[in-house]
Amino acid sequence: MTRLRAALDPKSVAIIGASENPNKVGGRPVHYLDKFGFRGKIFPINPSRPEVQGHKCYKSLADLPEAPEMVIIAVAGDNAIGAVEDCAAHGVKVAVVMASGFGEVDAVAGKAKERRMVEAAHKTGMRIVGPNSQGLANFGTGAIASFSTMFMDMDRAEGHVAMLSQSGALSTVPVGFLRQRGIGTRHTHATGNDADITVGELAVAVAEDPEVKLLLLYLESIPDKKYLEELAAVALDRDLPIIALKSGRSEAGRQAAQSHTGALANEDRVVDAFFEHHGIWRAPDMRGLVEATELYLKGWKPKGRRLVAISNSGAVCVMTADAATNVGMPMAKLADETDKKLKGILPSFATTTNPIDLTAALLSNSRLFGDILPVIAEDPAADAFLIGVPVAGPGYDVEAFARDAAAFGRQTGKPLVIAATQRSVAEQFSAEGCTVFPTETEAVTALHQFLAHRELMARTHERKAMRSAAGAAAMSSTATAMLNEADSLALLAARGIPVVPHRLCRSRAEAIAAFEAIGGPVVVKGCSADIAHKSELGLVKLGVKTREEAGDIYAQMEEIIRKHGARFDGVIIAAMAGGRREIMIGAHRDAVFGPVVAVGDGGKICRNLSRYRAAVAAVFQRRCEAGARPAAHRAAV
Amino acid sequence: MTRLRAALDPKSVAIIGASENPNKVGGRPVHYLDKFGFRGKIFPINPSRPEVQGHKCYKSLADLPEAPEMVIIAVAGDNAIGAVEDCAAHGVKVAVVMASGFGEVDAVAGKAKERRMVEAAHKTGMRIVGPNSQGLANFGTGAIASFSTMFMDMDRAEGHVAMLSQSGALSTVPVGFLRQRGIGTRHTHATGNDADITVGELAVAVAEDPEVKLLLLYLESIPDKKYLEELAAVALDRDLPIIALKSGRSEAGRQAAQSHTGALANEDRVVDAFFEHHGIWRAPDMRGLVEATELYLKGWKPKGRRLVAISNSGAVCVMTADAATNVGMPMAKLADETDKKLKGILPSFATTTNPIDLTAALLSNSRLFGDILPVIAEDPAADAFLIGVPVAGPGYDVEAFARDAAAFGRQTGKPLVIAATQRSVAEQFSAEGCTVFPTETEAVTALHQFLAHRELMARTHERKAMRSAAGAAAMSSTATAMLNEADSLALLAARGIPVVPHRLCRSRAEAIAAFEAIGGPVVVKGCSADIAHKSELGLVKLGVKTREEAGDIYAQMEEIIRKHGARFDGVIIAAMAGGRREIMIGAHRDAVFGPVVAVGDGGKICRNLSRYRAAVAAVFQRRCEAGARPAAHRAAV
Repeated sequence: MTRLRAALDPKSVAIIGASENPNKVGGRPVHYLDKFGFRGKIFPINPSRPEVQGHKCYKSLADLPEAPEMVIIAVAGDNAIGAVEDCAAHGVKVAVVMASGFGEVDAVAGKAKERRMVEAAHKTGMRIVGPNSQGLANFGTGAIASFSTMFMDMDRAEGHVAMLSQSGALSTVPVGFLRQRGIGTRHTHATGNDADITVGELAVAVAEDPEVKLLLLYLESIPDKKYLEELAAVALDRDLPIIALKSGRSEAGRQAAQSHTGALANEDRVVDAFFEHHGIWRAPDMRGLVEATELYLKGWKPKGRRLVAISNSGAVCVMTADAATNVGMPMAKLADETDKKLKGILPSFATTTNPIDLTAALLSNSRLFGDILPVIAEDPAADAFLIGVPVAGPGYDVEAFARDAAAFGRQTGKPLVIAATQRSVAEQFSAEGCTVFPTETEAVTALHQFLAHRELMARTHERKAMRSAAGAAAMSSTATAMLNEADSLALLAARGIPVVPHRLCRSRAEAIAAFEAIGGPVVVKGCSADIAHKSELGLVKLGVKTREEAGDIYAQMEEIIRKHGARFDGVIIAAMAGGRREIMIGAHRDAVFGPVVAVGDGGKICRNLSRYRAAVAAVFQRRCEAGARPAAHRAAV
Repeated sequence: MTRLRAALDPKSVAIIGASENPNKVGGRPVHYLDKFGFRGKIFPINPSRPEVQGHKCYKSLADLPEAPEMVIIAVAGDNAIGAVEDCAAHGVKVAVVMASGFGEVDAVAGKAKERRMVEAAHKTGMRIVGPNSQGLANFGTGAIASFSTMFMDMDRAEGHVAMLSQSGALSTVPVGFLRQRGIGTRHTHATGNDADITVGELAVAVAEDPEVKLLLLYLESIPDKKYLEELAAVALDRDLPIIALKSGRSEAGRQAAQSHTGALANEDRVVDAFFEHHGIWRAPDMRGLVEATELYLKGWKPKGRRLVAISNSGAVCVMTADAATNVGMPMAKLADETDKKLKGILPSFATTTNPIDLTAALLSNSRLFGDILPVIAEDPAADAFLIGVPVAGPGYDVEAFARDAAAFGRQTGKPLVIAATQRSVAEQFSAEGCTVFPTETEAVTALHQFLAHRELMARTHERKAMRSAAGAAAMSSTATAMLNEADSLALLAARGIPVVPHRLCRSRAEAIAAFEAIGGPVVVKGCSADIAHKSELGLVKLGVKTREEAGDIYAQMEEIIRKHGARFDGVIIAAMAGGRREIMIGAHRDAVFGPVVAVGDGGKICRNLSRYRAAVAAVFQRRCEAGARPAAHRAAV
């Protein structure tokens, strides 16, 4: 970890505004640094106390025996600005500013104060987290520079999950969920207003921590894609999965986000495409962010996502098949040989096709799971497993089921989830190290997310490898103006895309010659970079059958174009061509994500196009209202 | 409760195969009857014991002092058949047959045994529950004729929910979920193989219990709609909501259902339409079946479903708006006056538009909920409320929030849900009687289900009232053959549907007269009940402009029809008519649900129609494979 090391693994931490009371903002970090085994030096600063929580206390930064690498600024309001300036002057590397009341409450004066702090910091190379930050917590190094209450009743909970967000609440809510499942967190960072270090930049640094096995992000807006791209690249290189919950999917949500953080609205489908392109899984909500965590930590290397479901309840078999279909997970088709072997083990009234219904036979033979699992595991179609045990009262040897299932999971390395509603059953499976969900819907959804995400990562990796093998065959164009049709066709043709045979003609004679060369009937089209919609002006004539007609139309079209005061680039004579399917292609430059290409089903070109334009226009209008500069925008068919 | 009274409220219960051991199938009902306060007589029957669980035990039915109304048959296999015959002979009213090994394991011999039992029973008017039934449990009367283990560690858990299914596991899993939320169940019935009394018939009887406030159903197939229609009618009359989980939504699920119960596959969209028509809410999965239960039991009478969300976390505001949009729940647009009043209460940096972000202001004023809730409640747009408190550590007076929220809910009678992840926060709200969900997604989903279901019930009620007011203006046709176009148009016209001006002509002279009467240009179409696709045979001519042409085409068409050996019904002369939109209408007779009409978006009639036909054909093929008799089928445009 070299990037932002002083933020994540400082050698020394000073706390300006340190308090004896561990329930105060200035007391909690001191308490946490001790509690979570921080190995560096701790310097409380408080002019009115000789000692804080057992540590020698200093009157000011100037009194410290050395310049601390990190300073937690726990004083409120404008005092924090002075403290930042002081830190910068004393050679501090990172300041964590907890004070609120800046950009989040006043977009003008508050933001100006933030800029003042950042400018002071950057003069001496200091970096700032916050302001309005709940703080950073690295349980790996014990550097807990946070005042979150969440860690008060936590034991040393070092794990392999990293959770980052700007929001304090949203950095701790997922941690709370994971704790309920007994999963520890290694990093929990809430960066606040991101005046200097953004959540994205910090995430890149966290992704470099080799002990992090899963990185979770909560984002309300993506004002800058740079660090997310870098994060995705770092993560992909070391096979680290990233799940992002980007809220504001809906128009109502975007409006709320703007009230909350003044977030620049991102067009949601572009956000989807961006995450997918980079191998990042987009969670639909808080549950989706955390629900599959345990599966990611198992170290499974899945080969596919065909599911085998096994239950002692036929109803659970039916509902599992429904749930799998709903998320797009195929049920594995087992080989005839597997079926034959299963028929040798299971009683005649059990179902040997997938999903496998063990029926109450499980009651009389508690080794049934242990007997059939190895048989199914050999089937090449079996990628992943779900075992559903909705109810198992007295008479069922649940301990044996759980033991056999867990052993199977360990031996095969194939993903396995359990659906168990009854608490006593769930607990037995959990105790054996299985991942348990209360219903088949939740189990299938989490399993599918994990498998589909691993597939997405593999695809992304492959595409990246192919691209770097192919070298920098980048397609670029310096064109920033609207191209006329002839130039557009030439551009496409140069990239190897077949275009209809055509000629751009600059005189009646050329038009007639073109007709002769191409052979009738032809299409005649007026060509001007100033005119995007030709047919409205009578500049498209189909099925022109004679050279004279072609010549006459040339003259008419030149007149029409000139009459409208548009540039006359010529007239195109092209071969007639039919087609099977129309598609629309649109493009615009997104303020955050850059060039966006939209490809849509055609056949109703005008309707699709106008919808596309309306959607783009709406996004731009929102941007303009939000005060952002609209980027160049062009839609072409 | 008069229907099936002896099944739900017997005056006396005998147990054939009674056991001293409450963990055995024959011991558990005896134990439960005592434990849950059954007030009738209990007659254990076991030839080898003088006493069972403190009750005098009898050697046989013949030895009892009186004929018991209900007999629980807890002996296994074929012994159960003899016991059923014995019960019938002794004047028993209802026999609950727990033995398995009948139709569920052998579709031929097993089903034959079931028929034998039913025939024996019906000879003396006795009814049968089962076989393969886990049993009936009515906690209202204490008549627990069930061997489910679920009730062993349950206290007297009388509630207002009824849960019915064929499956034993699926009748108890929802009960387990509800218990975790502290919600008691009044009825839990698992009817098994439904050889006589079906789950639907029992549900009608249960729906008549005035103490039941919510009825839950798990169904794997709908072999007969009769009792479901009756159930829906009874429920609608007393405003009782019904939620049904009908599994086998997907093709994979239907296949599994067929393995499980030999279920006749229902076409899923028809199932959707059937439930919707009858005001029954269809749950997508187990969670959906139980998740909103608490809301149904509050007695709320919602007026609409516009949501107001309030949180101390801006992020929760954003995610709530996203979740609401996702389920189709509109965010309420609050009145300017409300906004003005809120601005007077909340600090300037809080958000007064909906969703309302209280920010950390809640920390300094713990009465904020109490202050703003009454203001918002007055807004006519506020139909329902969500309060989200994701994290609230020391410093927050969560008790006050919970008290204020609960009081508000009671005073206004407006639906209110809480989203609280932190367990301590959730518990405080629960303790005050609020309905709490771990995340905003779950809270919004449950709230929306409740509100949308109440709307559906109101619509169904209204439609039913309108129909009965309109009287029996039933539309019926005795036609069972394909109609020709003229007859189809006449049928539509007779029902008040406007049709294009037209005449059916039986001679050239009539055709010419029709042209004169209608005025050109006209459409000329050959008419034959034997020919569904006219244009392929040249039997549609558009834009016919002269009387002579009309006459000539008449002759041509007659020739074409006769040449194909089809019945010649005449030639239609009709006015030309344009249109804005094409729609397709298809109809078929579903084996279970009867006539099904499908209406689809048009413009691509042929494609839609062939898809429709393919879908219908697939359903029928499945039916035929399943051995069912295909019903009459007709698709017409």
